Amino acid sequence: MTLLEEYLQIRKYSEQICEPLQTEDYVVQPVVDVSPPKWHLGHTTWFFETFILKPFSANYQVYNDDYNFVFNSYYETVGNRVIRTDRGNLSRPSVNEIYQYRAYVDEAMTIFLNTPLKDEVTELLVLGFNHEQQHQELLLTDIKYILGNNPLFPVYTKDKKEILASENESGLIDISAGIYEIGYEGTGFSFDNELNKHKVYLHDFAISKTLVSNAEFLEFIKAGGYENFNYWHSEGWDWVKSNGITSPMYWHLIDEEWFNYTLDGLLPIDPNAPVSHVSYYEAYAYASWSGMRLPTEFEWEVAAKSFNWGERWEWTESAYLPYPGFSKAPGAIGEYNGKFMVNQKVLRGASIATPQNHSRITYRNFFHPHLRWQYTGIRLVK
Amino acid sequence: MTLLEEYLQIRKYSEQICEPLQTEDYVVQPVVDVSPPKWHLGHTTWFFETFILKPFSANYQVYNDDYNFVFNSYYETVGNRVIRTDRGNLSRPSVNEIYQYRAYVDEAMTIFLNTPLKDEVTELLVLGFNHEQQHQELLLTDIKYILGNNPLFPVYTKDKKEILASENESGLIDISAGIYEIGYEGTGFSFDNELNKHKVYLHDFAISKTLVSNAEFLEFIKAGGYENFNYWHSEGWDWVKSNGITSPMYWHLIDEEWFNYTLDGLLPIDPNAPVSHVSYYEAYAYASWSGMRLPTEFEWEVAAKSFNWGERWEWTESAYLPYPGFSKAPGAIGEYNGKFMVNQKVLRGASIATPQNHSRITYRNFFHPHLRWQYTGIRLVK
Amino acid sequence: MTLLEEYLQIRKYSEQICEPLQTEDYVVQPVVDVSPPKWHLGHTTWFFETFILKPFSANYQVYNDDYNFVFNSYYETVGNRVIRTDRGNLSRPSVNEIYQYRAYVDEAMTIFLNTPLKDEVTELLVLGFNHEQQHQELLLTDIKYILGNNPLFPVYTKDKKEILASENESGLIDISAGIYEIGYEGTGFSFDNELNKHKVYLHDFAISKTLVSNAEFLEFIKAGGYENFNYWHSEGWDWVKSNGITSPMYWHLIDEEWFNYTLDGLLPIDPNAPVSHVSYYEAYAYASWSGMRLPTEFEWEVAAKSFNWGERWEWTESAYLPYPGFSKAPGAIGEYNGKFMVNQKVLRGASIATPQNHSRITYRNFFHPHLRWQYTGIRLVK
Amino acid sequence: MTLLEEYLQIRKYSEQICEPLQTEDYVVQPVVDVSPPKWHLGHTTWFFETFILKPFSANYQVYNDDYNFVFNSYYETVGNRVIRTDRGNLSRPSVNEIYQYRAYVDEAMTIFLNTPLKDEVTELLVLGFNHEQQHQELLLTDIKYILGNNPLFPVYTKDKKEILASENESGLIDISAGIYEIGYEGTGFSFDNELNKHKVYLHDFAISKTLVSNAEFLEFIKAGGYENFNYWHSEGWDWVKSNGITSPMYWHLIDEEWFNYTLDGLLPIDPNAPVSHVSYYEAYAYASWSGMRLPTEFEWEVAAKSFNWGERWEWTESAYLPYPGFSKAPGAIGEYNGKFMVNQKVLRGASIATPQNHSRITYRNFFHPHLRWQYTGIRLVK
Repeated sequence: MTLLEEYLQIRKYSEQICEPLQTEDYVVQPVVDVSPPKWHLGHTTWFFETFILKPFSANYQVYNDDYNFVFNSYYETVGNRVIRTDRGNLSRPSVNEIYQYRAYVDEAMTIFLNTPLKDEVTELLVLGFNHEQQHQELLLTDIKYILGNNPLFPVYTKDKKEILASENESGLIDISAGIYEIGYEGTGFSFDNELNKHKVYLHDFAISKTLVSNAEFLEFIKAGGYENFNYWHSEGWDWVKSNGITSPMYWHLIDEEWFNYTLDGLLPIDPNAPVSHVSYYEAYAYASWSGMRLPTEFEWEVAAKSFNWGERWEWTESAYLPYPGFSKAPGAIGEYNGKFMVNQKVLRGASIATPQNHSRITYRNFFHPHLRWQYTGIRLVK
Repeated sequence: MTLLEEYLQIRKYSEQICEPLQTEDYVVQPVVDVSPPKWHLGHTTWFFETFILKPFSANYQVYNDDYNFVFNSYYETVGNRVIRTDRGNLSRPSVNEIYQYRAYVDEAMTIFLNTPLKDEVTELLVLGFNHEQQHQELLLTDIKYILGNNPLFPVYTKDKKEILASENESGLIDISAGIYEIGYEGTGFSFDNELNKHKVYLHDFAISKTLVSNAEFLEFIKAGGYENFNYWHSEGWDWVKSNGITSPMYWHLIDEEWFNYTLDGLLPIDPNAPVSHVSYYEAYAYASWSGMRLPTEFEWEVAAKSFNWGERWEWTESAYLPYPGFSKAPGAIGEYNGKFMVNQKVLRGASIATPQNHSRITYRNFFHPHLRWQYTGIRLVK
Repeated sequence: MTLLEEYLQIRKYSEQICEPLQTEDYVVQPVVDVSPPKWHLGHTTWFFETFILKPFSANYQVYNDDYNFVFNSYYETVGNRVIRTDRGNLSRPSVNEIYQYRAYVDEAMTIFLNTPLKDEVTELLVLGFNHEQQHQELLLTDIKYILGNNPLFPVYTKDKKEILASENESGLIDISAGIYEIGYEGTGFSFDNELNKHKVYLHDFAISKTLVSNAEFLEFIKAGGYENFNYWHSEGWDWVKSNGITSPMYWHLIDEEWFNYTLDGLLPIDPNAPVSHVSYYEAYAYASWSGMRLPTEFEWEVAAKSFNWGERWEWTESAYLPYPGFSKAPGAIGEYNGKFMVNQKVLRGASIATPQNHSRITYRNFFHPHLRWQYTGIRLVK
Repeated sequence: MTLLEEYLQIRKYSEQICEPLQTEDYVVQPVVDVSPPKWHLGHTTWFFETFILKPFSANYQVYNDDYNFVFNSYYETVGNRVIRTDRGNLSRPSVNEIYQYRAYVDEAMTIFLNTPLKDEVTELLVLGFNHEQQHQELLLTDIKYILGNNPLFPVYTKDKKEILASENESGLIDISAGIYEIGYEGTGFSFDNELNKHKVYLHDFAISKTLVSNAEFLEFIKAGGYENFNYWHSEGWDWVKSNGITSPMYWHLIDEEWFNYTLDGLLPIDPNAPVSHVSYYEAYAYASWSGMRLPTEFEWEVAAKSFNWGERWEWTESAYLPYPGFSKAPGAIGEYNGKFMVNQKVLRGASIATPQNHSRITYRNFFHPHLRWQYTGIRLVK
């Protein structure tokens, strides 16, 4: 596949994710962490325009100067005019205008990618691919949030299943103590936070082959797990109390039966499916209650060769920190990952929202410990 | 005009206000006081469905049971499911669905209004007319807010002018001390807060024939009015400081020249137009600076026979309080006005957003003193 | 009594109020509206130093330059140093130092008041007397708050009774419609907000001779008054819900019996005593429930000649607004009252915390509608 | 030294720290992280009463039942009475009463410690010693906060120096890659979070022998370090902007010269002293600007044998997480450390506020990254 083909395929996939939407669904931002779908479509386009076309494509005409502060989101000042640009407050540019913007940039990119590229440009281009794929993941989970918090519980599509494969094998995998190598090494793409490959000493541990299921998590609820502070971090307990949390996100108890909102609408809980949409606090509390613990991201990376993963992002006990020898790239691209390395937890694996070819065993995702709108799950360790 | 004709005319006007909008404009709620246009369209329809069709029209089939908590906004609970239904977070029902809902209710109302009506129903019907007209006023000012706080400053329409008539006469009108009658009396419609007609003693005063103009307000800005706490209430000064207020809403200083956003787009300030989009705090501070004061609502009502009004809502010094003998209607309708009678200021007159036939000299509007998204203006008294 | 004798008597009374305190009680500020007793003692002293001694007493040496920003509370900047000076965060100056400051200023005042005084000074002096008396009222209610919100419920003193006299007469007083004169006129002291004497038209009304009692208020509680939003303003209802209000301030339900904290410690509710420590919202809700209403401040002033008052400040329906012809004094003294004339409610009467000679029938006190730490009560009107 | 002698010595030291205070200084709580000195004195006493005397000393009479919820701080409910017990709002129990409480418990402990002790009790006793020593550290830094945020800048004492020793040696120490042992092992006391001793793989690094000095930190300020977001975490930058941070805590720029508040009063910055009272965010930004980085807690523990430490707590890059095999003790004591293991950063070393015999090379302190009232410093690594 040429870079142009890859570009067009990735760009098309973002639009495919939005196909089931009505225009109104593109616009809203129900909480600060969830962006309007039209913003994702515009922002990923702005990325290629700003970092590739403007600096490297001679004679490129910027589509609309004002889009810089709409889709950049760092700039809130226009000349002397200061305007609040919270993403969910902006009805314009309209969805149609954003699709026109995408078409305009895609056309310019098509011409540009048919010319010889400098290495530096190729590198930025591949970063742009991965950037758009990251937003595809958010796009789907943001759409789920927008529809799943609507009291009409609209169906996204009957075709997107939240459970991909049944997990047959149960039991634990034993890993022996010793020095292991962690991090990315190779010629393919990786984010800067996966570098460099380095040694880590691990102690003996045994890790579960399967994720915690809805049925297992229901046991925790029934055992009063949400009412007993002993299982929780002090901060987690505050979060439970001040938000009135009594179950994973999207769960609703209706006439004594548990339902959950899925892309397929409001459905009874599937007991065999992996539990999902739990915060790190809940994952930790569940582990405490069960007498086990969460893996570190290093344990996960070493063991993951031996079990299936990829349906749920898995919370780890590890804080999101730089690897030995980590250094930021110079310039705006350097802001990519390093500046978030405080007060967040690492997730490993991938989820059903992850685009194909966008996961690998060294991939490090990260979120604040209270967030739950991603397809987050729980794997235990002893 | 029959009640049916009046009904259809009013219902049509709500939709005419929305004609210049794109679908996305119907959805957003940039601040809590501004509702999405689609919510206004649904809520006014729900009012007729809930208070007329359901109780009085035999065999009426409710359009959609779930709409009760979407458009009522008082109910946030569905069975055991609790969902946040902030208006601006709801992409569904879609704009199309709401127009279908309107058509369905309008058809049922058309049939119903061709049957003989009890007095009680006629009364509720007329309340429903006035209720929808109140929302028409909000609809236009909410649309202005939605577009005017977008950094692209989209034009609403070239046809809706914010200045209706030039005001030729200047000078003061003298009114003599004495007992005057205040409040509504007659056979037409009025809100409960305009009742009953009652006596008030007024002292001598002189009231300006014209509203304060943009040019006059600019003098206040240039004289440092926003930097001198002596002109302000203590609370007003806190509001200025904590919100960084330096001019009326929608004003922008660009390259040393003042512009303001209008329904017609971003335009230079018209010096002769009445100043608009000021809070009560600003109106009071301007009056203090000028050595005059704001009228009470009683002074305004007595004097208003002698000057032109109707372009800008006019802030008064009066707090919004019940008239002697005020009593709430029983039932849900009784919630209409009385429960807001604390911590709000009375506005008198009407504005260019007010529908025809929806203003009268006894009409009492009311808002919290910091709000400015209505077409509020300033008239002075000595 | 000479002005000097009056000065010394008033100054001494502030210190007498503090006699039962321990040093620690002088220091804390449990909520923003309650000031530490030592701050009151310092601030009232600073008033005489700043407005009398510094401008008018030749050769007066300021006690401590830094006290200006400690006791003024408007200044938070010292040179380039910016320090947070929330009153309850300041352990220094110590209580002893403040008593020394008082003694120093009192000595200088004694010398100064033995010299002939200009009229302008006499006027400021009398304002200073009334200013310190206002703070005496706050001093006692702030002390009650500090002790009454301590889980040990310490006794202030056995000697200060919260109920002064039994009220024998019940029933209503009828007042006929007509023009009445309102406001202060005379040669004694009054605040600027009581001026000028002016005409008001009142309609027929009947006002209760007595205040609502604890027993009567308990009926409201038992009837579910705190659970039924129909009795409340919309804002009042929000206040009830978000603060979990279920009774007047200082009330505690212990083993099914109601107690309240008094200056005399935690005691069973006295059913015959007037209910106290209610917000305006509660006063309004009680009146709604009872089928009556609160008086306006004008009705109160006209009727008060005919009933006993002075134990509880009485909430009125009137917003705190300027009288006709009100004008601010020039300079800092002009800030005294006018700048608070928005979003507050008028209280009339006086309370057991009011110093002798500091009440009159035209006196206008004012507080935000949610506040309850004053001895506020309820009188009803039909 | 017997356990009794050790007990008495530690108990006495808490009171010695408070000797320079005035009564008022014991009472205030200017920010949530700072407790009133009298609370520390009571809480540490309550610890011995609750965990030793009540369960193990026959016939012990509790001093005052109400003290449980005053000094425990977890209980805010008394019977049916719910009272806000924010520590800084409580004027009672008075300072004298708390000293009497201490004397009462010390007397009971003296009798009890002269009896034979079970191992379980000895363990709790030693935990109580270390608990009180931890509070001694907080006591001194809380006192500094209380006095240092008072605009009068009172002196604590001339005898307590914030700089203990000049640091002569500069330069870097090189450590080679390899497996190292981390954590406590031995028969003395350690906290549960220091256990167990375990292996960690470290890469080559070089660590500075000295802490960053005030002079060096001033260079960062002068170079615009607080204005350039490139040096900061995203969260750190938000913290800088929303709090208006422009220097370490206690620094004041007066007439172009930098001063800082010390226990000895407001003094010019000592350029050779180690910079102190910086947040983790500032430590990280300084390191970024300097082209170096902060050590991990493991690097620190390995290298600390080779340099002097103990004057300033040193921020590390490590998040506060459990060591391999960490497990909570059963019961209330088990809450001690584990429940804080999220969103905090590890500090290593000790500070001038640390009591003698209360530091060791495996000690792990931890705070949220924005806090700066401890004597925190910066050591760099390459």
